[in-house]
Amino acid sequence: MNKEEVAMVGFEIVAYSGEARSKFLNAINNLKDGGSMEESEKLIKEGEASLTKAHKSQTELLAKEASGENIELGFIFVHGQDHLMTTVMLKDILQHLLNIYRNEE
Amino acid sequence: MNKEEVAMVGFEIVAYSGEARSKFLNAINNLKDGGSMEESEKLIKEGEASLTKAHKSQTELLAKEASGENIELGFIFVHGQDHLMTTVMLKDILQHLLNIYRNEE
Amino acid sequence: MNKEEVAMVGFEIVAYSGEARSKFLNAINNLKDGGSMEESEKLIKEGEASLTKAHKSQTELLAKEASGENIELGFIFVHGQDHLMTTVMLKDILQHLLNIYRNEE
Repeated sequence: MNKEEVAMVGFEIVAYSGEARSKFLNAINNLKDGGSMEESEKLIKEGEASLTKAHKSQTELLAKEASGENIELGFIFVHGQDHLMTTVMLKDILQHLLNIYRNEE
Repeated sequence: MNKEEVAMVGFEIVAYSGEARSKFLNAINNLKDGGSMEESEKLIKEGEASLTKAHKSQTELLAKEASGENIELGFIFVHGQDHLMTTVMLKDILQHLLNIYRNEE
Repeated sequence: MNKEEVAMVGFEIVAYSGEARSKFLNAINNLKDGGSMEESEKLIKEGEASLTKAHKSQTELLAKEASGENIELGFIFVHGQDHLMTTVMLKDILQHLLNIYRNEE
């Protein structure tokens, strides 16, 4: 895959990860501001659906490189990866922040 | 931009992001250790100023690549991006950690 | 170093960072679920040992690039870096999550 094709996947991953990140942050803010756990859980599910799409694009490219195909990396693709991987980390921490806000009530 | 020029931007981004990250972590530790919210807010403002500088370098390069210019990525630049993007994530979580420590008082 | 050699280091970093990340998340979950602080501290120590190994591989390559050697980056290596750097960020936040769960008891 040449740089332009890889960049297109990069833009896609930025978009899906950005969507997931907003949903996750909204889920925490909702609980912090006295909203219901049901609403937060709905937001998390929506975020997870976007994250799954971003993950799918990533996995396809990793598999291509692992099978020997040349993947020409550019900045936009690397930027997409950073978005995806920091959002995955946010998801891991999210549950604890929700827990703690819930325990405070 | 060749690899050396891109690496110089990478070093700059590592430095600014590292500064921001220290300020943010100090802001949380300050509150945890019984310091004032005013002091933590001052540290956060200083961290945000450094983060803005790192973001500016990043945006310039993203715009160059998007406009078709070839950006030769090296490890140091990729490392800078990881520093920047994880620090952005820390900033998102920071407010909640401060909130929680404040509620505990 | 050519792309294949760099990819091998990338796989190594993914493995060590993934191990560290699991240990850190287990340390938080253990405390959340009423486990002992001793057990969580043991898990953190194990995670830190894995993280040190991942860091070592990273530092060696950064030094090589800084000294002028050409490092041919591929996706797997970039993926390893994302794993490593988000796990380092998790480690910074970890202490606060443990603190907060402990204060709640």
